[in-house]
Amino acid sequence: MAGGGEVIDNKQVILKQLVNGAPKESDMAVNTSSISLKVEEGSNGLVVKNLYLSVEPYVKIRMKKFEHPDFSSFTPGSAMDGFGVAKVVDSGRPEFQKGDLVWGIVGWEEYSVIKNPESFFKIHHADVPLSYYTGILGMPGMTAWVGASGAVGQLVGQFAKLLGCYVVGSAGSKEKVEILKNKLGFDDAFNYKEEKDLDAALKRCFPEGIDVYFENVGGKMLDAVLLNMRLNGRIAACGMSAEHNLEEPEGVQNLRIIIHKRIRMQGFVVFDYFPQYSEFLDDVLPQIREGKIVYLEHITEGLENAPAALAGSENVWKQVVLVSRE
Amino acid sequence: MAGGGEVIDNKQVILKQLVNGAPKESDMAVNTSSISLKVEEGSNGLVVKNLYLSVEPYVKIRMKKFEHPDFSSFTPGSAMDGFGVAKVVDSGRPEFQKGDLVWGIVGWEEYSVIKNPESFFKIHHADVPLSYYTGILGMPGMTAWVGASGAVGQLVGQFAKLLGCYVVGSAGSKEKVEILKNKLGFDDAFNYKEEKDLDAALKRCFPEGIDVYFENVGGKMLDAVLLNMRLNGRIAACGMSAEHNLEEPEGVQNLRIIIHKRIRMQGFVVFDYFPQYSEFLDDVLPQIREGKIVYLEHITEGLENAPAALAGSENVWKQVVLVSRE
Repeated sequence: MAGGGEVIDNKQVILKQLVNGAPKESDMAVNTSSISLKVEEGSNGLVVKNLYLSVEPYVKIRMKKFEHPDFSSFTPGSAMDGFGVAKVVDSGRPEFQKGDLVWGIVGWEEYSVIKNPESFFKIHHADVPLSYYTGILGMPGMTAWVGASGAVGQLVGQFAKLLGCYVVGSAGSKEKVEILKNKLGFDDAFNYKEEKDLDAALKRCFPEGIDVYFENVGGKMLDAVLLNMRLNGRIAACGMSAEHNLEEPEGVQNLRIIIHKRIRMQGFVVFDYFPQYSEFLDDVLPQIREGKIVYLEHITEGLENAPAALAGSENVWKQVVLVSRE
Repeated sequence: MAGGGEVIDNKQVILKQLVNGAPKESDMAVNTSSISLKVEEGSNGLVVKNLYLSVEPYVKIRMKKFEHPDFSSFTPGSAMDGFGVAKVVDSGRPEFQKGDLVWGIVGWEEYSVIKNPESFFKIHHADVPLSYYTGILGMPGMTAWVGASGAVGQLVGQFAKLLGCYVVGSAGSKEKVEILKNKLGFDDAFNYKEEKDLDAALKRCFPEGIDVYFENVGGKMLDAVLLNMRLNGRIAACGMSAEHNLEEPEGVQNLRIIIHKRIRMQGFVVFDYFPQYSEFLDDVLPQIREGKIVYLEHITEGLENAPAALAGSENVWKQVVLVSRE
């Protein structure tokens, strides 16, 4: 089975069993297995050394038992996986060379075998922090960019500002609200946990109504937004967060408002737009370099700290695990 | 106040008081007032003799207390109103001449004063039954036509068939299901009242999934449809029926499906499309004349029978009141 070559220890974050509710640190274990650093004979895959792992709802969802056309649950007893930044150690295909930096779906482990690297992106611009390829220059950033010509989280608002919109954010803590307003350049923001009446909060922030809503929450917020949409308004519905509580969807009561307000609601999944990734980079990289976009991330060092980082990731902007600096 | 000219008796259907729940015949009274058959001095309105009145959800809704940006409740003690076909008796504007046939919003009465006839349509084609201008050639038909390039009721399915779609209808009785399949040319149909599991019914009728759904119902049906939509499917959300139970909206649980199925949902209101009415007529009139579209209506004679017709209008395809033949 081994492809030959050096076999070394490989620390891994393992899911012990499928979970209900919010994942806890104790649902995961850090084990050590071994891995060959050469691709198997005849394989056109890769062996990569993982540098950064993205901690996000997508990973948490997959710790649960659920059915979804695009994703499946993790296999208990095996390493978890998710988006990450890695360096190619060995390659069975000419497009990737040893030493190349890449991003894509990797194991939560020090080294990964990538059998089908078709959906991996090579990183050509390393003058920005490599962790950015798990965030602003990765799936969340691309989602925000796609949706903001309609809008994710900290980024969609900034992209919308750059497009000339008046932008109001909603966040779950006083600190986040302050950061949205004072650091990220949002025109206004409110704390949805402290607003007793979301409808009133939206009327205060948008006295003339809402033209574009980036739907990433569902339930009560969407109901309140529908009440405050303007005629011919648009709703971009995206993402992963909305899929978070798959087992207990919150009903939407005010959907009929889309009729008399002539609202268009468009669901989208960022993967469909990955062919436009280079266009996205051309647009966003200069804005990062010029400081026009502020990007907030929280980096936890060490794969052994990944379970705690995941279990406690609710209240930070973007959580990343640094597995290795190179 | 009177504009001069002949003053005659004018039978009217009066709303006694705003209602809760389904309107009953006893909520209305047929009274007789009087009306001058000449437009007031200086007015650019019309006086019309009403021929047909359209019995529809829109009229029932307005018998209730509710708030809506486009419609208001009727005033208790006054005549109700709604779409109808009428003949001009006197006109204060050159576009309309005595004898012209028109359709638009008229009182539920023998004669009406139309202060603002801007939204009236002149009827140029009287070779089809005039009642059709309350239905297939009026608001419901236009709604079906607008929605069917995506898809109302008996008509949207026929328009969709003419566009080449495989069409399945949902109706509330065995008789209606038979008519959909055998008279209206639907490919299939089911009785939503007899299906215990709407999801299973849709899977049976659409084993490969649904591309286009004409949403006119909401609630449980929409939830089941969402489960059966195909990738990149489209939902046209229109109409009046959906507004029917304004006081008790039914929640939608499966809305998040629009994300991973990349569904576009577009609300629309037929009034926005009235500038295209002549295009609609050019398209639909020949199909009616050639018998390519089957149109089912139920005509009750006599304004005095309008309250009973309205109260009992649930189970017919299209209910019309014949006030006068000319």
